[in-house]
Amino acid sequence: MTDAAAPVIILVEPQMGENIGMAARAMANFGLTEMRLVAPRDGWPNPAATATAAGATHILDAATVHPDTRAAIADLTLVYATTARERGQMKRVVLPAEAVPEMRPALAAGGRVGILFGREREGLWNDEIALADAILTFPVNPAFPSLNLAQAVLLVGYEWFKAESAGALPFGDVERPAAPREMVVSFFEALEAELDAAGFYPPDKKATMARNMRDMFLRKGLSEQEVRTFRGVMTALTKTRRGGGTPAA
Amino acid sequence: MTDAAAPVIILVEPQMGENIGMAARAMANFGLTEMRLVAPRDGWPNPAATATAAGATHILDAATVHPDTRAAIADLTLVYATTARERGQMKRVVLPAEAVPEMRPALAAGGRVGILFGREREGLWNDEIALADAILTFPVNPAFPSLNLAQAVLLVGYEWFKAESAGALPFGDVERPAAPREMVVSFFEALEAELDAAGFYPPDKKATMARNMRDMFLRKGLSEQEVRTFRGVMTALTKTRRGGGTPAA
Repeated sequence: MTDAAAPVIILVEPQMGENIGMAARAMANFGLTEMRLVAPRDGWPNPAATATAAGATHILDAATVHPDTRAAIADLTLVYATTARERGQMKRVVLPAEAVPEMRPALAAGGRVGILFGREREGLWNDEIALADAILTFPVNPAFPSLNLAQAVLLVGYEWFKAESAGALPFGDVERPAAPREMVVSFFEALEAELDAAGFYPPDKKATMARNMRDMFLRKGLSEQEVRTFRGVMTALTKTRRGGGTPAA
Repeated sequence: MTDAAAPVIILVEPQMGENIGMAARAMANFGLTEMRLVAPRDGWPNPAATATAAGATHILDAATVHPDTRAAIADLTLVYATTARERGQMKRVVLPAEAVPEMRPALAAGGRVGILFGREREGLWNDEIALADAILTFPVNPAFPSLNLAQAVLLVGYEWFKAESAGALPFGDVERPAAPREMVVSFFEALEAELDAAGFYPPDKKATMARNMRDMFLRKGLSEQEVRTFRGVMTALTKTRRGGGTPAA
């Protein structure tokens, strides 16, 4: 099943099956489902694509093949043409992070959105770019601007999903309840008493050194678990020093 | 020459030379120069890497090889560990777009920043992740979270360069001087006179239809060139209609 509420990826005359497969994988990484192929050089289906899709075969199986670019975008209402270099066309040029916010209202209004990616070597012809609403390009090092086809697809998918997920992490920080202040201060006191007993502080420096160490522990916040761990460390170390046996395992 | 003012990419026990080459290409696309390799499976240098680097051989030539992760990050002051899934570590988790703004002050203060990428199949070991300051992860479709190694490198490079280039386009829209209003209105009048002469307007609709057509032309702004083009079109069409010869080529 393809998803009409996400942009369509259109590969125009892709040459390498490996790139088609990696583009499908990149689409799956970012929740894109519909791939269209314009006259793929080695025909379709292509075993080389399956080999690099890393399991994204549902996208390859649902891909449709079209004789030319015009046919591939016939039902679309908003079309971007990706290019890596100036093409001299009287057309707006946008970055992926600018294009994605334009796609949502178009899709919400029932339109269909697609992005054209050109041939590995030659890109899109000017006549194909002229069919698009805008040119989509990437912020790349001008000394090395040539993106691999699947990597260009990846960047569009990434910006799409980044907006979809609105900055949410795929998994969160580990639950880490902060230690109540009394638990922390009581640990400080126990530690300072042990250090005092061990003759750790020069008499005139004790107040400053103790304060600095409290600051050090507090700098990034302590969780309950961390306070318990530090207490365990302290107990173990003092046990060794006192000759009270081996530290607890 | 590597650039100490940009993050270092560290590939830990990469298995496929092809991925090392594609990672180098992705680095070159986004202005990253320093690659470090921890015990690459097939030794180093690796011809398979050169084959997929698409010319980014300066990065492969300058890559250094290290026996383990600890040695590879010895001189770094801020280290991220990339993972695709929850690892249960008591460590902050950030997205690339959050990590990049943290890197700049660290680099500006003379520190060195690096990002660890794990083995293709197993990723990073937990002991390796424990060496890092934070976990870096990607906003991916939870049903298909596995990114190719080079594509993970690409996304970090992309966010880095995006911040570096601050939204600047690699090439601009074509220079397209807007038409002065008098030029536009004079074209409208000429067009409306021609259409009137041709009996285009029903008498009671003329004002509305003319206004709608002016709106249509003005909706996206007209450049001088576009007004000249429309005038040429109009002249050519009226020439044909009047039997005044073939349209100008």
